[in-house]
Amino acid sequence: MIVTTQQGMGQVALKELATVLSELDERFNSLNFLGEQVFFLPDNLDAQQVNEVKGLLGVAGIYSPPLHYQLASSVWRKERTGFLVDDIGVGAGHFQVMAGPCAVESESQMDAVGRKLRDCGVKFIRGGAYKPRTSPYSFQGLETEGLKIIREVADRYGLKVITEVVDRSVLDDVLYYTDVVQIGARNMQNFFLLKELGRIDKPVFLKRGMAARITEWLGAAEYIISHGNPRVILCERGIRTFDTELRNTLDVAAIPLIKSLSHLPIFADPSHGTGDRKFIKPMALASMAAGCDGIMVEVHPVPAQALSDGQQSLDFAELESLVKSLNSLKKVLPTL
Amino acid sequence: MIVTTQQGMGQVALKELATVLSELDERFNSLNFLGEQVFFLPDNLDAQQVNEVKGLLGVAGIYSPPLHYQLASSVWRKERTGFLVDDIGVGAGHFQVMAGPCAVESESQMDAVGRKLRDCGVKFIRGGAYKPRTSPYSFQGLETEGLKIIREVADRYGLKVITEVVDRSVLDDVLYYTDVVQIGARNMQNFFLLKELGRIDKPVFLKRGMAARITEWLGAAEYIISHGNPRVILCERGIRTFDTELRNTLDVAAIPLIKSLSHLPIFADPSHGTGDRKFIKPMALASMAAGCDGIMVEVHPVPAQALSDGQQSLDFAELESLVKSLNSLKKVLPTL
Amino acid sequence: MIVTTQQGMGQVALKELATVLSELDERFNSLNFLGEQVFFLPDNLDAQQVNEVKGLLGVAGIYSPPLHYQLASSVWRKERTGFLVDDIGVGAGHFQVMAGPCAVESESQMDAVGRKLRDCGVKFIRGGAYKPRTSPYSFQGLETEGLKIIREVADRYGLKVITEVVDRSVLDDVLYYTDVVQIGARNMQNFFLLKELGRIDKPVFLKRGMAARITEWLGAAEYIISHGNPRVILCERGIRTFDTELRNTLDVAAIPLIKSLSHLPIFADPSHGTGDRKFIKPMALASMAAGCDGIMVEVHPVPAQALSDGQQSLDFAELESLVKSLNSLKKVLPTL
Amino acid sequence: MIVTTQQGMGQVALKELATVLSELDERFNSLNFLGEQVFFLPDNLDAQQVNEVKGLLGVAGIYSPPLHYQLASSVWRKERTGFLVDDIGVGAGHFQVMAGPCAVESESQMDAVGRKLRDCGVKFIRGGAYKPRTSPYSFQGLETEGLKIIREVADRYGLKVITEVVDRSVLDDVLYYTDVVQIGARNMQNFFLLKELGRIDKPVFLKRGMAARITEWLGAAEYIISHGNPRVILCERGIRTFDTELRNTLDVAAIPLIKSLSHLPIFADPSHGTGDRKFIKPMALASMAAGCDGIMVEVHPVPAQALSDGQQSLDFAELESLVKSLNSLKKVLPTL
Repeated sequence: MIVTTQQGMGQVALKELATVLSELDERFNSLNFLGEQVFFLPDNLDAQQVNEVKGLLGVAGIYSPPLHYQLASSVWRKERTGFLVDDIGVGAGHFQVMAGPCAVESESQMDAVGRKLRDCGVKFIRGGAYKPRTSPYSFQGLETEGLKIIREVADRYGLKVITEVVDRSVLDDVLYYTDVVQIGARNMQNFFLLKELGRIDKPVFLKRGMAARITEWLGAAEYIISHGNPRVILCERGIRTFDTELRNTLDVAAIPLIKSLSHLPIFADPSHGTGDRKFIKPMALASMAAGCDGIMVEVHPVPAQALSDGQQSLDFAELESLVKSLNSLKKVLPTL
Repeated sequence: MIVTTQQGMGQVALKELATVLSELDERFNSLNFLGEQVFFLPDNLDAQQVNEVKGLLGVAGIYSPPLHYQLASSVWRKERTGFLVDDIGVGAGHFQVMAGPCAVESESQMDAVGRKLRDCGVKFIRGGAYKPRTSPYSFQGLETEGLKIIREVADRYGLKVITEVVDRSVLDDVLYYTDVVQIGARNMQNFFLLKELGRIDKPVFLKRGMAARITEWLGAAEYIISHGNPRVILCERGIRTFDTELRNTLDVAAIPLIKSLSHLPIFADPSHGTGDRKFIKPMALASMAAGCDGIMVEVHPVPAQALSDGQQSLDFAELESLVKSLNSLKKVLPTL
Repeated sequence: MIVTTQQGMGQVALKELATVLSELDERFNSLNFLGEQVFFLPDNLDAQQVNEVKGLLGVAGIYSPPLHYQLASSVWRKERTGFLVDDIGVGAGHFQVMAGPCAVESESQMDAVGRKLRDCGVKFIRGGAYKPRTSPYSFQGLETEGLKIIREVADRYGLKVITEVVDRSVLDDVLYYTDVVQIGARNMQNFFLLKELGRIDKPVFLKRGMAARITEWLGAAEYIISHGNPRVILCERGIRTFDTELRNTLDVAAIPLIKSLSHLPIFADPSHGTGDRKFIKPMALASMAAGCDGIMVEVHPVPAQALSDGQQSLDFAELESLVKSLNSLKKVLPTL
Repeated sequence: MIVTTQQGMGQVALKELATVLSELDERFNSLNFLGEQVFFLPDNLDAQQVNEVKGLLGVAGIYSPPLHYQLASSVWRKERTGFLVDDIGVGAGHFQVMAGPCAVESESQMDAVGRKLRDCGVKFIRGGAYKPRTSPYSFQGLETEGLKIIREVADRYGLKVITEVVDRSVLDDVLYYTDVVQIGARNMQNFFLLKELGRIDKPVFLKRGMAARITEWLGAAEYIISHGNPRVILCERGIRTFDTELRNTLDVAAIPLIKSLSHLPIFADPSHGTGDRKFIKPMALASMAAGCDGIMVEVHPVPAQALSDGQQSLDFAELESLVKSLNSLKKVLPTL
């Protein structure tokens, strides 16, 4: 059973509420979602006890049994969630672009990317240090060395870092260097890892699994939130369908659908979503027109020489053109 | 073997070319694609004969063997195809909205829709007279009576009619009343019907089958074109995927993909594409941002009372809002 | 509203029942399903009228509103349906193999196939005279000439003919030559054609559409049955999924699922289901073990020279081996 | 570059070969695949060096670059792989059933299952101690307590244990109690975990991801094998398709396809593959007829009371009937 509280409750009132709940069942626990306190109680309270809780001062709502994505849902929280990554806003009207190569390959590669991003006004640099690859014989990433490079470059150009964690065993390492932790599509239902991400104090960028239903995706977000971390960003990155012409089918409708079911920020990744740089710009614009809160896109100084995903990476001129177009569309969107 | 000719060739030159080709093989035939003549020869000419054809005056290209969507492809025709439906332009920069109910239900229903469309500046009215339904016990459409109603309403308000033909046996009937012939998703590979549509002089609106690969869809267009009718409009209407939250998955990336592979106009149908009126507007804007040439959308005076597809039909206020937004986006698009 | 009657009712009792129903609503009609009479009434009778019908002598059940596949469903008819094609049993324990080339190519090809089938004890010869092809430039079949060939060969070797009808305009032609009419996957929801097949007196072999849900498939069968033809055979032929290693994914579980939802005979087609002759035999055995009533399989004297589908056609030795294995498995199956 | 060696090479010859390879590149390493030694060298040797290696005594083949599933492939190893789990054979003709509840719920539940399995002649007991669930609010398993229970019950009845590991952090715990380590569908591409499983000395049961292509699945197996563990069992457990009637679509054709591409044992799981106990038996028989090496199936003393997956669990009578039928079919299969 989930008990939500009224916005802006003071510490004293919250403490009192906690005391009463602890009398009902001492195994209750709670978390703070961007200022709102949420209590979890066992689901076996009787009707009288539930009524008692309902009547308590400061209680806003009771969900029993909860949706499997109750805290991620717009049933609970009507306004769209936004938060800061350091001083940079994400969600709730702060449109952001996150760009960079598939994999960190070298200092010079990342330096070139970082400088270009700063010049374009992009605030987040991405790049993988641990690469999940279908083949054990493919390039697997620079690991810690790659993390150091992306951090240094980001600091040099005033950017925030987003990079993927692929296993709990490297989480501490990744957390030391990154600002936002990315969970890749293959790990969307790695529940042990998700729970661990509930205990960290950095935002999590949760990519949709390639065959994940929308509510399964929100269930994965719920694992993170219900373990204590409210700062989850969802990212649609293409689903696997019968169509073989492109790498994936970017499910653009997932954007308004998520905004209807959930309050969490929703991004789109047209690089993985199409697998073909020719289609990145139209699909980025389409995603923005559909209402997304940001775009993740792959960029490489020389896409043809990329160690991975070159065919779906923009070159610098294309990135510049894309950012300009997104900025133009951003201005007109509120009037549509 | 397909032989294409240079643009703007005169009648005399074409006749000469035809004469030479007929000496190579008397079974050749030809068609005229919006001003360009195209000749079909058997594929068994020898290398010397092929070379001879290549050297003939006015020959622009030889495709042997042809792609299965050669005439629909951008390999042959680089510029985007546009044409008139009476005096209304479609494709090549003429963005159009086609709107109306799923099914023609009554004169009063259609009159209300027609007046609203005229007031909004929409040029095409849609509405089915023969409805393909999963169950034999569902409403099957008003048939000829429905065709008469939509024609009269269209004439009353200065609109063009687009309606679906579901079988060759009713094609003459439909042709008598309509301006554009629609082929539904279930009929996309009804090849006998497609060939017949190659012999008519009205544009064909070809919806994508719900599990059709892009090149299969273009192959269906090729059936129509190669039998003599160049005026084909493609329409993405959602594909069937594992996702069950929405009725279909609107494959927005099919829009830039079609524009890369083909010169034909490409529309999007966010009503069938989502199955939920809440998502029609964002998906219409997304489709336009992705580069489509027009939108087909379902509208009903009272969606809750529609005999079919009410949940994916806009009401009049929503239609007005949608058209306004599309018009605003249209203005900014060329600068993106 | 559908009214079913008790088995074995006499003509007099049926006439009386019809008279009473005609007093309730003169627009009622009826059909005979392999000996059982079924009446259709409008769905707008009031509760008292419905009760009255329920009480009539001979009435077995009332379905109001009916399932969209009521007559195809096992809700209505518990025992499995079997019937004769001339003197050959299909369904209800009569396992049959239907074999032959994708397309009728020549008299000598078909003669070789026909002789082989007879020698193997196969009772049905298949072969397409009208071939639906993705490309308009591919071989489209021998048409009427092909129908004549397959009929003559069948008569020569004591076989029954099954061949596909692709359009109503060639239905009479096909009916003249065939014993069983096949509806291909692309035509599964060609409702005008399905209704027409309800009016013929030959069995219909209805292939599942490549993206058809089970209940949509049964709805297609219902179109045929409710228009008067009870002899429908369903055939699972593979669905389209994300997997690209094989041509289709043979949905073997559709076999027990259909047997749970419906009383109609269910076949499997491992040729189209896999697209690869290497996998035909294991998948035919799997389908039989899952409970199917028969197998359709492609066979060609020289698969490498087939004009279509050679890669999924057995040669004669493979056919012989398959039939032997099916016969062996058939013996043990009732004990499993 | 992968260098394989001839079967039955002695230790002296292998040492000599290793010495020569170390002169070419000191970074080479090797593993032993059930008696066959395999060497890995960098892919940058020049043509002369490659030729030199080819000529070395005992070298059977060179793969450069290797398939991404070279060691899992039948290109390398023609005969089907079989191995022992303690004294129980798996693969290469040893058909095995693995059965038990979705989750370990209590000692009494497992004791009842264990006794029944022994009485039926089943050799492997399954049961999850860590359950991956879509919702964080669902039952998550008994964890270590569950592992202890399943081990004790297995020992009591002479059974082998198979249970799932969901994260590296619990791997040691799981390894202490189990005989075979299961990787669930959601973890199929958890590459860090797969590499770790390459370093253990127990067989790995690798379920196919619900949207995994066959070669991606084999790539996952390659991660395990190339890190040192040759004992990998593949298990088809249903893929996610557009069809919603059943929980998944059991891809039965994956069985002969895997046997064509790989030498590894292949099982089928008709419980997850269908999600409905009504269809477990026909699909188990179908999978066996298609050539699988074993069946994994869910069983529960009282399915209706199961904490998870009750609807896809057999009761004891159904299990007994299934095992009997599989045994009967096993006898006749070699003659088909």
